[in-house]
Amino acid sequence: MISEGGAATALDRASRAAAADAADPLAAHRERFVPAPGVVAYLDGNSLGRPLRATVERMAGFAERDWGGRLIRGWGEGWMTEPVELGDRIGRVVLGAAAGQTVVADSTSVLLYKLMRAGLDLQPGRSGVVVDPADFPTDRFIAAGVAAETGRRVVPLADGVDAAERVRQTAGAGTALVVISHVDYRTARMADLAALAAAAHDAGALLLVDLSHSAGVAPIDLDASGVDLAVGCTYKYLNGGPGSPAFAYVRRELQDGLTQPIPGWMGAADVFAMADRHEPAPGIRRLLSGTPPIVAMQPVRDMLDLVEEAGLDAVREKSVALTDAVLDYADAVLAPYGVRTGTPRAAGERGSHVTLEHPAFERIVPELWERGVVPDFRAPDGLRVGLSPLSTSFTELHAGLEAIRDALDTA
Amino acid sequence: MISEGGAATALDRASRAAAADAADPLAAHRERFVPAPGVVAYLDGNSLGRPLRATVERMAGFAERDWGGRLIRGWGEGWMTEPVELGDRIGRVVLGAAAGQTVVADSTSVLLYKLMRAGLDLQPGRSGVVVDPADFPTDRFIAAGVAAETGRRVVPLADGVDAAERVRQTAGAGTALVVISHVDYRTARMADLAALAAAAHDAGALLLVDLSHSAGVAPIDLDASGVDLAVGCTYKYLNGGPGSPAFAYVRRELQDGLTQPIPGWMGAADVFAMADRHEPAPGIRRLLSGTPPIVAMQPVRDMLDLVEEAGLDAVREKSVALTDAVLDYADAVLAPYGVRTGTPRAAGERGSHVTLEHPAFERIVPELWERGVVPDFRAPDGLRVGLSPLSTSFTELHAGLEAIRDALDTA
Repeated sequence: MISEGGAATALDRASRAAAADAADPLAAHRERFVPAPGVVAYLDGNSLGRPLRATVERMAGFAERDWGGRLIRGWGEGWMTEPVELGDRIGRVVLGAAAGQTVVADSTSVLLYKLMRAGLDLQPGRSGVVVDPADFPTDRFIAAGVAAETGRRVVPLADGVDAAERVRQTAGAGTALVVISHVDYRTARMADLAALAAAAHDAGALLLVDLSHSAGVAPIDLDASGVDLAVGCTYKYLNGGPGSPAFAYVRRELQDGLTQPIPGWMGAADVFAMADRHEPAPGIRRLLSGTPPIVAMQPVRDMLDLVEEAGLDAVREKSVALTDAVLDYADAVLAPYGVRTGTPRAAGERGSHVTLEHPAFERIVPELWERGVVPDFRAPDGLRVGLSPLSTSFTELHAGLEAIRDALDTA
Repeated sequence: MISEGGAATALDRASRAAAADAADPLAAHRERFVPAPGVVAYLDGNSLGRPLRATVERMAGFAERDWGGRLIRGWGEGWMTEPVELGDRIGRVVLGAAAGQTVVADSTSVLLYKLMRAGLDLQPGRSGVVVDPADFPTDRFIAAGVAAETGRRVVPLADGVDAAERVRQTAGAGTALVVISHVDYRTARMADLAALAAAAHDAGALLLVDLSHSAGVAPIDLDASGVDLAVGCTYKYLNGGPGSPAFAYVRRELQDGLTQPIPGWMGAADVFAMADRHEPAPGIRRLLSGTPPIVAMQPVRDMLDLVEEAGLDAVREKSVALTDAVLDYADAVLAPYGVRTGTPRAAGERGSHVTLEHPAFERIVPELWERGVVPDFRAPDGLRVGLSPLSTSFTELHAGLEAIRDALDTA
């Protein structure tokens, strides 16, 4: 152990965590989640959110009563409109999007592909696709693929701290589309969406934002921010389960002229017309291709219920308090071990995870998992502490941080 | 009622149905499915298969123990390889495909898009995409879209009865790809896959088959038939639930050079490398894009268990007996009402549904649904009687057919 006389401080920290839980208005919500035997601290809700107890019931009930009881009739009794209705609900509860602009479908990757293609179609005279070289691989890979197949070119986003400023430095008269994540999957740096949109629009470009690391945990105001296109996943802070479908948002004014490259029957104006040609459905529904993933759409409903009940502002407040606690601990306890972090200090500039960096983490993370402490690891040396405010307590977080310290002690 | 003296015959038919159930080696399997209150005859298993009782348990158990208990660790404990392992199992149990050639992902529409693009990339000097003008809309719409975006042209499949002969009449030196359904979604006409593949290959074309209306209900021998590419859905005869993911098959020899247009992180050689460029995974896995739909993949496991237990040959035998019973009834009882059918008489030439045609069916089908008799309707005048052998009894079928007759009586 590096610091002598740390015992009292450690007790103080444990007491402070307990006090924070006692004062936490959201504390009781944690009991709504399925318990995970042997898990001391789940610090990876930013990768896969925990299931609610209600979801266990919902999945069985859906199979038995909806699918099993209503059978094919379920399509006429709600499933057919569910991609748009669930999209509207996500829009209202977490995206700040008015109805008719959000749809649930496919995966984030497939929707990124569709929206990049759609966005470029709307910008025929422009050739640049601005992409952050540090963005999540899928976003970069698909942008590169779409650019190659449509005769466009990828333009790397300029280096820097402020995302909007980086866009202003990069985007110009030839820029068709700016693709960027709202919250960086490694640093957790959060961009200002309105400033991003203004920067893209000032260059005549469209803005496509990936909300995977913010949807459900940070207030987002897509309509007011002027964002053109957005995608996001539902298995992180929206607790939809492993591989649950994604959502896509298209600003209403862009919808009528929108084309997408996978014109399946479910995106047609008249699904059952069995027509000779594909006539796209009016509005956001045209983004659909195949039969919507109804079973896989069910779990997210429970988390939307809970987020709505708790209030997204309260969720964000606890998220900030949790990430603050990680940064405090990192500074006070982990820094002497050589642990660093690139996660922003200013609460307004970060999402709901903190990435700690240390060369030993690649070896330590599997050991932590063995002990029921579950963060995740991102190469080369990042340990991500993900905080899902509705399922994470301050005491749990503190236990996880102490385990990281213990592991470094014996490293 | 059209035929007088029909009462004795009706009794005879009911007795024959009861006798067929008594002699049916698969009869007991019907009890494995979730009961549907008020449903007298479910004749739409070709659109949406019924859930097994085991699936209700599985969905709850998955949410509670796998997702809820293992959390993010589930990815390392099987989920990451599940698309290929489940694909291999579908390949073995229902497709006649050796391991390493089938993957579960996306929807049928998205996989059709990927495989059409991939197939055309393998045929750079050829421009024709042969498509059946009577094929399911998604297949036609996506072929038209892919042809347009890649500078190819759609060539309508010649008219006729025998699919392989139609391909021979249509495909030539300029044909890149032949896209066709194994079983026609309206007529139920089933093509000979080996003859189809030979016809396509003799023209130098690749063959892409849609198996949605045959997978799980008819023996398919992809490897031996020489089929190049195939897709299919899992919510019909594989009982995966509404909108369950699809599968794709790529013949092993074509995999190494295969490219696909949506290069997401899960199809990369090293998923967690977070590399600068997308390096496709070796083998079939490169067809993946985003995070695999793990929750939605679960139900199909139960039906694969049951199909394996029952034996696909026995399933096919009962399927033929059920469709025979529909055709017998149509000829003897419904023909006098003016009901026709384009479904082939020869058992070897049809899949597991029969489409009956009558101008009154558009009005009658909703009435039948009200009475718990559930076929489906396909414009302009088709009532499809879908027979899912493991969940359908002869008595149930007979009750459904009698209800159709009754409805025509009062039409």
